[in-house]
Amino acid sequence: DIVASLIQDTASARQQTDLQGKTVMITAGPTREPLDPVRYISNHSSGKMGYAMAAAAADAGANVILVSGPVSVPPPAGVNVVNVETAQQMFDAVMQHVQATDIFIATAAVADYRAKVLENNKIKKTGDELTLTFVKNPDILKEVAALPNAPFAVGFAAESQNLAHYAKSKLENKKLAMVAANDITTSGLGFNSDHNALHVFWENGDKQLGPAPKTQLARELLSLIDEKYKNKPSN
Amino acid sequence: DIVASLIQDTASARQQTDLQGKTVMITAGPTREPLDPVRYISNHSSGKMGYAMAAAAADAGANVILVSGPVSVPPPAGVNVVNVETAQQMFDAVMQHVQATDIFIATAAVADYRAKVLENNKIKKTGDELTLTFVKNPDILKEVAALPNAPFAVGFAAESQNLAHYAKSKLENKKLAMVAANDITTSGLGFNSDHNALHVFWENGDKQLGPAPKTQLARELLSLIDEKYKNKPSN
Repeated sequence: DIVASLIQDTASARQQTDLQGKTVMITAGPTREPLDPVRYISNHSSGKMGYAMAAAAADAGANVILVSGPVSVPPPAGVNVVNVETAQQMFDAVMQHVQATDIFIATAAVADYRAKVLENNKIKKTGDELTLTFVKNPDILKEVAALPNAPFAVGFAAESQNLAHYAKSKLENKKLAMVAANDITTSGLGFNSDHNALHVFWENGDKQLGPAPKTQLARELLSLIDEKYKNKPSN
Repeated sequence: DIVASLIQDTASARQQTDLQGKTVMITAGPTREPLDPVRYISNHSSGKMGYAMAAAAADAGANVILVSGPVSVPPPAGVNVVNVETAQQMFDAVMQHVQATDIFIATAAVADYRAKVLENNKIKKTGDELTLTFVKNPDILKEVAALPNAPFAVGFAAESQNLAHYAKSKLENKKLAMVAANDITTSGLGFNSDHNALHVFWENGDKQLGPAPKTQLARELLSLIDEKYKNKPSN
């Protein structure tokens, strides 16, 4: 009957991706970089893909740590959430938990730059033009992947052009295990959408996933991560 | 009995502030100024105060036009909502409806500046520092108040210092009927909070409202606006 078949489907999905006893840390959402007490720079990341990955990992039996920027999606059940606002706060939270982490999945759209000077008072509009200088934030994913005994590190790349080129560069430059890339110019997919399509790259191969709902895509990507993770020589 | 007393309370509240036949336009929320396809500058305005003003105005019988930036609060019943993202879009929407407007209440935290150059592709992090140049957005409130047959124009001022000074300057410089100022450094009030306190200024007087829930504060402020509006020589 239908119920038995649903239970069997669920059971086989869990069997496919079994992360019992593993700790998976996921970053999600945007970061917000303040300019003054009221203004900030942010981006259109909704956090939906990261939250779907966290739900899929918890469903696969993993101990999940979700380090999240400000989003409006509710946290999945059975997941440890650490809420942060800035890139520096996200970096600190990740570094606090990274030693215990087996798989690190960086879905967050971390701000690359923060204001060089954080104004304590609201910037007044005086001149016709305003020039602001920004300095680089820590590259969380790169620093995690460069650690001794680094976790299996998976990056995301949201690109508006030359997707495969930028994704492969990211894989090499940051010494990642995998990169999941998506084209942000594809209408109806990606940021703020419930659907997405990913082109996943690793050292000697690649695979296209979707277009599919982010919840389904998260399960497929986690299954692929699990497969590559378990095939690593050191595991 | 309780029901009768509630009905009487509601009736007397409506009697106090009667805006039947009047059109009230309210701007609310932040604006978002894009830097590239993924990044933007915004601010911490939740839109709650503007949405509470819109609900109070609708309750007082007014025809309400709510021009709103991106917020997560649901629109009040019986209100015409025009959703916008940038300051320029908000300006265009306001100008489209201003001729029919009797009272204009500008609660929106409009971005003073937008990027001078909007990048079509995602800005790549190359240099250690990044310098961006911004140009001034149209001053919606000032332009509305300067119109021939301008509506009764009420501004808001969110300040981190010298509140009375900046509020009075705004009143004079923009030739407004009233300015409602709040101190954003007061903990637990203002941005993102459900409570606020206002110091309201007009040509020959001022009044402090709250601290109170934003819904109550909105009714008190609307009652004060209604009083000053009806006492204007031209009305």
